[in-house]
Amino acid sequence: MELLDGKKTSLDIQNELSEKVKSLVANGTNPPHLVAVLVGDDGASRTYVNAKVKACERIGFKSTLHHLSSDTSEIELLKVIKSLNEDHSVDGFIVQLPLPNHIEDHKITLAISPNKDVDGFHPENVGKMALGLPTFLPATPNGVMELLKRYEIPTEGKNTVVIGRSSIVGTPMSILMSRKSNPGNSTVTLAHSRTKNLEQICKQADILIVAIGIPEFVTSDMVKPNAVVIDVGIHRIEDTSKKNGFRLIGDVNFSEVSKKCSYITPVPGGVGPMTIASLLMNTYIACNERN
Amino acid sequence: MELLDGKKTSLDIQNELSEKVKSLVANGTNPPHLVAVLVGDDGASRTYVNAKVKACERIGFKSTLHHLSSDTSEIELLKVIKSLNEDHSVDGFIVQLPLPNHIEDHKITLAISPNKDVDGFHPENVGKMALGLPTFLPATPNGVMELLKRYEIPTEGKNTVVIGRSSIVGTPMSILMSRKSNPGNSTVTLAHSRTKNLEQICKQADILIVAIGIPEFVTSDMVKPNAVVIDVGIHRIEDTSKKNGFRLIGDVNFSEVSKKCSYITPVPGGVGPMTIASLLMNTYIACNERN
Repeated sequence: MELLDGKKTSLDIQNELSEKVKSLVANGTNPPHLVAVLVGDDGASRTYVNAKVKACERIGFKSTLHHLSSDTSEIELLKVIKSLNEDHSVDGFIVQLPLPNHIEDHKITLAISPNKDVDGFHPENVGKMALGLPTFLPATPNGVMELLKRYEIPTEGKNTVVIGRSSIVGTPMSILMSRKSNPGNSTVTLAHSRTKNLEQICKQADILIVAIGIPEFVTSDMVKPNAVVIDVGIHRIEDTSKKNGFRLIGDVNFSEVSKKCSYITPVPGGVGPMTIASLLMNTYIACNERN
Repeated sequence: MELLDGKKTSLDIQNELSEKVKSLVANGTNPPHLVAVLVGDDGASRTYVNAKVKACERIGFKSTLHHLSSDTSEIELLKVIKSLNEDHSVDGFIVQLPLPNHIEDHKITLAISPNKDVDGFHPENVGKMALGLPTFLPATPNGVMELLKRYEIPTEGKNTVVIGRSSIVGTPMSILMSRKSNPGNSTVTLAHSRTKNLEQICKQADILIVAIGIPEFVTSDMVKPNAVVIDVGIHRIEDTSKKNGFRLIGDVNFSEVSKKCSYITPVPGGVGPMTIASLLMNTYIACNERN
C-alpha cells in the first residue's frame, strides 16, 4: 500500500505556483488576488478559510478575508458579491459554505460572476465541466483528479465507484472521472443513499471515491484487493489522548482498508490539502485570463 | 414484454398542451412561439425540424422556421441568434445540430440566451440540471424521463446503465437518473467506448439506456431478463422491400431483446417522439415564465 500524499502534492503545486507568481511580478503584473467571504463563526469554516488565506500568502498571492457577522442578511451578502464581481483588483473569490440558515446557498452561488467563481460552483461552470469545455473545475473533485494525475494512477477503462452525489463533490467527481480525458475515461458508477447492494457495487471498484459524510463508513469487506481508495470525508472525533482533545478521521476505516488497497489517501493530509491547491490553481488561471 | 409507446405518449402530452394553449389564448395571451433555425440541407436534420414545426402547429403553438443556406457564416448565424435572443415575440428557439463543419457547435450553443434555450444545451442549463435547480432539461433525456414517469416504471434504487456519454444524451441522462427525484434515485453507471467488460456491466442493469450510435449494438446476451430497455439510437438502413427503400432501426436488436425484457421502446415510435414532446413542454414553460 502506498499513501497518496495530498499534503506533499499540494505543497509541490504551491511551490510551482509560487515560481510562476515571481515571474508574473517580475514582469510588472499584479499577483493573483483571491478574496474569501466568511459569514458567521462556524469553527470548521473559519479553519478552512484561514488555511486558504495562509496558503495564498505563502505563495505570493494577494488575499483578502471579508468576515461578516452571522446576522448578515441575504441582501447585504448579495451586495458584497456584486461589489466583488465589479472590482477589477479581484481575480477570484469564494463564499465559504455552509451559510447561516437564513441565507439560501444557491442564490449566493448564482450571484457570483462565473469568471470569478474559482470554487467552480456556478451552474454555468458546472455545465461547462459536464460538456468538457474549459472552465473552473470544482475544487475538491479537481484536487482528486490532480492527485490521480501526479501519482500516475491509470484510470482509463477502470471501474470507478463514487459514493455520495452531492453537488460539490460526488456528482462533479463522477462527471470528471467519466469524461474523455486523462485522468478520466473511467466507467463510473455513482452510488448514494438509495443504492441497494452497496457493498457488492463497491467491491467491483478499481477506484473507490468516498464522499458520503459518515465516519469510517467504508470497511475492508467493501473494498476489492489492490483498489485505489480516495477518502473525501473529514470528521472530528473526541480523543482524550490528544492535546486538543480530538482527532480527524475520514469516511473510510483507514486502519482496515489500508491493509487491502494499493493506494489510499490519509485523513488528514489527503484530499483536504488538494482542495486548497485546486482553488489556488483556479485563482492563478483567473488572473491569467484577466491579464 | 410491454412496449413503451413514445408515439402515443407524445400525442397525449401534445393534447394536454393543446388544452393549456386554448385556455391561454382564451385569456388573451399569445400562444407559445418556438423558432427553429436550420442551416444547410442535411436530409435528416430537415426531417427533424419539420416534425417539430408540424407538432407546434398541431397544438396551437406559433412556430417559425429560419432556413439558412449551408454557406451561412458563423458570424451571420450569431447575428440571427442575437436577434432571436432580443425578440420578445419569441419564447424559445433551437438551432438544429449538427451544423456545417465551418461553424463550431459550442460557440452557437453558448450564444443562445439560457432562458430561451428550450433544447437545454446551454452550459448554464446543463449545470442547473446537475445541481437539481429548475431549468430547461435537455429534450431527449427529459423525454425518456417523462416516458418512465408515465409508464410508472420504478427507478429508485435500481441499477441503471447508460451506454454512451454524449453531451446531449448520455451524460445528461446519467445525471437525471441519479438525481434525488422520481423518476431518478437510480444507481447509475455511465459506460462508453473505453469501458471494459461492457457485456457484464449491461447484464447487471435493471434499466438499460442505449445511446451509443451503433445499429443493433445491444443483443439479447447483454440484457438481464426482465430489464427495462430504452433505445435512443436511430439509423436508416436500406430495405428494398419498403416503398421508400429504407427502414429505421435503433441501437438495440429489437427482435432478440424484446423477447427477454419487460419493457422496451420501439424504433421508430419510442424515444424520438418523446424528444419532440419534451421540446414542446420546455417551450410552454418558457412562454409561461415570460408572461
